[in-house]
Amino acid sequence: MNPVAFSDNDWLDAAAALAARGRPLSRPNPAVGALIVKDGRVIGRGWTCEGGRPHAEARAVAQTLALPGNAARGATVYVTLEPCAHESGRGPACADVLRHMGVARVVIGCEDPDPRTSGAGIAKLREAGIAAELLSSPAATRSLEGYLARARLGRPHTTLKLATSLDGCIAMADGTSQWITGPEARAHGHGMRARCDAILVGGETLRTDAPRLDVRLPGLAVRSPARWVLTRGPVPEGWQAIADPAEASFGDAQYLLIEGGAGAAAAFLAADRVDRLLLYRAPILIGAGRRGLGDIGLGLLGDAHGRWCLTDQRRLGSDTLDVYDRIR
Amino acid sequence: MNPVAFSDNDWLDAAAALAARGRPLSRPNPAVGALIVKDGRVIGRGWTCEGGRPHAEARAVAQTLALPGNAARGATVYVTLEPCAHESGRGPACADVLRHMGVARVVIGCEDPDPRTSGAGIAKLREAGIAAELLSSPAATRSLEGYLARARLGRPHTTLKLATSLDGCIAMADGTSQWITGPEARAHGHGMRARCDAILVGGETLRTDAPRLDVRLPGLAVRSPARWVLTRGPVPEGWQAIADPAEASFGDAQYLLIEGGAGAAAAFLAADRVDRLLLYRAPILIGAGRRGLGDIGLGLLGDAHGRWCLTDQRRLGSDTLDVYDRIR
Repeated sequence: MNPVAFSDNDWLDAAAALAARGRPLSRPNPAVGALIVKDGRVIGRGWTCEGGRPHAEARAVAQTLALPGNAARGATVYVTLEPCAHESGRGPACADVLRHMGVARVVIGCEDPDPRTSGAGIAKLREAGIAAELLSSPAATRSLEGYLARARLGRPHTTLKLATSLDGCIAMADGTSQWITGPEARAHGHGMRARCDAILVGGETLRTDAPRLDVRLPGLAVRSPARWVLTRGPVPEGWQAIADPAEASFGDAQYLLIEGGAGAAAAFLAADRVDRLLLYRAPILIGAGRRGLGDIGLGLLGDAHGRWCLTDQRRLGSDTLDVYDRIR
Repeated sequence: MNPVAFSDNDWLDAAAALAARGRPLSRPNPAVGALIVKDGRVIGRGWTCEGGRPHAEARAVAQTLALPGNAARGATVYVTLEPCAHESGRGPACADVLRHMGVARVVIGCEDPDPRTSGAGIAKLREAGIAAELLSSPAATRSLEGYLARARLGRPHTTLKLATSLDGCIAMADGTSQWITGPEARAHGHGMRARCDAILVGGETLRTDAPRLDVRLPGLAVRSPARWVLTRGPVPEGWQAIADPAEASFGDAQYLLIEGGAGAAAAFLAADRVDRLLLYRAPILIGAGRRGLGDIGLGLLGDAHGRWCLTDQRRLGSDTLDVYDRIR
């Protein structure tokens, strides 16, 4: 059987898809994906494990050890993030592991902003005669957006979820909102929760709806994110509070999901702290209902343009999901 | 060259696409499309002409007369609507024309609700030994929806257009709405106007915005629809008024386009007089702006479901268009 010809970017796309398995459990480490390829065939694959160790490269290398001979010698490693250059008490540097295995080439999807590694991982590989290339892969960068937001901005990558009618209402005028979207869209929303490590609602939503914000999918209840509320008032046990979106760092969370209400959503948008919009829409019209957003401080209509880009669109039962990313 | 094998429904789809060329100029007649096919090849094609004559079948037959011999003899005719059975001062009945030409088979996409023809066109063909079949083609029925709405409901097929931000606003709080959507979406909107023969806004929109509601596309200004306003007050020259959506018949218009504002849109929805929603959305957030719909009289959230079905979705520049049809 002939191996299929994939480009370096195709392999990095595949590594990024593997990396998603570590999200968000790898915290505080980045969720990295790695593939080891020899003669067009995958001989090792790995992703960052729960709590951050083993690293993706170490897992992929461990798989090659089960093969005859030194299978990794002369192979190419595809890894979404620059291999770490620093040893820690939890294991050796990945750059050293790859050097030790005698791989020929390492293709990297994204440079590590961590000052202990940034550039040093690549340098260490090259010193050992390994062809190390940085490709700037969109898929790899996207798969690391939580880690990158923390490293660069000191806050989690932030997604605002809105579930509305076609005319943009999140509830009837009396507050009734069960149900606007159908079971497929709600299940997708719970899947999003499981991929985030922090979730936030506004103070009024907490007081009025007392939402559980847990992951109601079989086997995934343990993945329920840490609960935050935007308030200056007291908070119930099991919740943490922030008073100002512009100043909150959310511990070491990499992925924050904002689930409303209109005031909290508007506060994060006004502070330009939203990186992604998840717009679930049901095929219904409500009319004079409650709207999903409060005042976001927009002065001129022209200023609203050029900020959001449609990146995904799908159907969920009879509902639709549009995903928009903040253009920065 | 071998002819491609098309099914009867494929040919009816093609006839329906031809029929669109007659919309809305064929008024007061239906915009019909016809194809004459022999040995897998099209030998005649036609659509209803401006003002309703010639009919589609007559135009298609006329094309076959330019061919050697009697090309139409033994051919199959695909026509979106049952051929007319009644003679008029403007021409013979199409059923008689087809009989005279000696066609072998007529495949019909939709029965004519006109009592002068309904069933009689098919009967007349069969009496002449022609195999006449009624297929109930979704494409044919959709291409006739203006004519069918007039015949069955005594009113035009009605489309509500909304151009909003992602959060469902049609303007800033101060009324500024130029521009929310981009040039591609606006051009598409003008194309929709050219395909309608009546257009309506609410009284407040007329007073505040004084919209021209014309077709601003090169060469299509003559296709600007008749202008209507929902008001009990006086109307300017060149406009016609209706006071109540539930009672308006809009002359002989087959296609009505409602362009707002929120009150007029809500009034037509509350009266269940909207058959299609055209939702243009720009990738912007406005927040505390003006909403596209007023109170539509919805009592229970559950009652909002099961009424609308997504039938088309496309991108227009950086905007999106979602089309929803009323499920009846």
